[in-house]
Amino acid sequence: MELLDKLKWRYAAKAMNGKKVAQDKIERIIEAARLAPTSSGLQPFEIIVITNSGIKEKIRPVAWNQSVITDCSHLLVFAAWDTYTEERINKMFDLTNEIRGFENEGWENYRQQLLGSYPQKDPEVNFNHAAKQAYIAFSQSIAAAAFEGVDSTPLEGFDPDAVDEILGLRAKGLRSAVLLPLGYRDEKEDWLVNLVKVRKSTEDLVTVIE
Amino acid sequence: MELLDKLKWRYAAKAMNGKKVAQDKIERIIEAARLAPTSSGLQPFEIIVITNSGIKEKIRPVAWNQSVITDCSHLLVFAAWDTYTEERINKMFDLTNEIRGFENEGWENYRQQLLGSYPQKDPEVNFNHAAKQAYIAFSQSIAAAAFEGVDSTPLEGFDPDAVDEILGLRAKGLRSAVLLPLGYRDEKEDWLVNLVKVRKSTEDLVTVIE
Repeated sequence: MELLDKLKWRYAAKAMNGKKVAQDKIERIIEAARLAPTSSGLQPFEIIVITNSGIKEKIRPVAWNQSVITDCSHLLVFAAWDTYTEERINKMFDLTNEIRGFENEGWENYRQQLLGSYPQKDPEVNFNHAAKQAYIAFSQSIAAAAFEGVDSTPLEGFDPDAVDEILGLRAKGLRSAVLLPLGYRDEKEDWLVNLVKVRKSTEDLVTVIE
Repeated sequence: MELLDKLKWRYAAKAMNGKKVAQDKIERIIEAARLAPTSSGLQPFEIIVITNSGIKEKIRPVAWNQSVITDCSHLLVFAAWDTYTEERINKMFDLTNEIRGFENEGWENYRQQLLGSYPQKDPEVNFNHAAKQAYIAFSQSIAAAAFEGVDSTPLEGFDPDAVDEILGLRAKGLRSAVLLPLGYRDEKEDWLVNLVKVRKSTEDLVTVIE
């Protein structure tokens, strides 16, 4: 399958060469994230796309000084909702009714069910749940980047509070969940580029119950 | 892009027709999960693949009685490690050395760094982190299923403790994180099949910092 070939080709680039990724490729990589499924369709995250070199330079020291932060073309920050609020839930249900052009009783009951549950939960629990949805989208962007022949570096090694501060995310009710630098590998500088991909065997990963 | 066409085609099937998915397609959908990137390459999850109808019937009532649980062809349970242990971390680092055929000082230092951090953390924090890695793999399986023309239903609506109990996961140091029934849509029974896909606009999703 062509997709598997692309997923085998991809790896977490540890050095990038600064070359710019074409805008249409970036748009398709983000579109994959936008199309990703999320719990109850709430899409509880936003994506900050950074090409500004000053901002990248501010983020690099709070991301273990990893060079891909500044040498990537576009730095994607997946920022999850800090909690689920009534307003946010209503906005997505209203959008659904607007796009589909009708209201449905079952759907409205489901809205009430979510309104009666999420906003009352511990914000930390809600953020963790929202972050998982952001990871689904993040993963679809990784696949889409591979499909485009664009390198990416899935990156959890950063100080989320510091990134939130640099980007002013908390004021928007967001918290950084995970980063995805996009660009092109620097084959000369990247220690990982020629190493064999390591994965558990299928036998170790999978249990079949027939 | 062909991948985007597939991602637009996919939706969370709400009814499936019981038709069996060919084994080679299942293998490629699982291979996408196996190839997925994870934090430090630890792949802290396993996948339980269920075709057994008795087990599906036991799970259905603890998953809001959703029909796709029993009417799917293969039910994938993504089960994350309940915590990170010394043994689990060493196993992946040893596998890396074995596959690559050499030891590397930087890599061994990194092993020590993880051994000095993960096992000491609250298991709940570790499980949440491991579950996020499982979500990355889960998302790659969703994309691969779409690529194969196979329907899937990303499914968080279940009682994890009950599923753990049915599958005996806790004894293996695993906890169910998310489910993915795979099969074929039942167009007559599925209320969602003909409804327009709803997503936030790109403008609402993305902030660009140039």
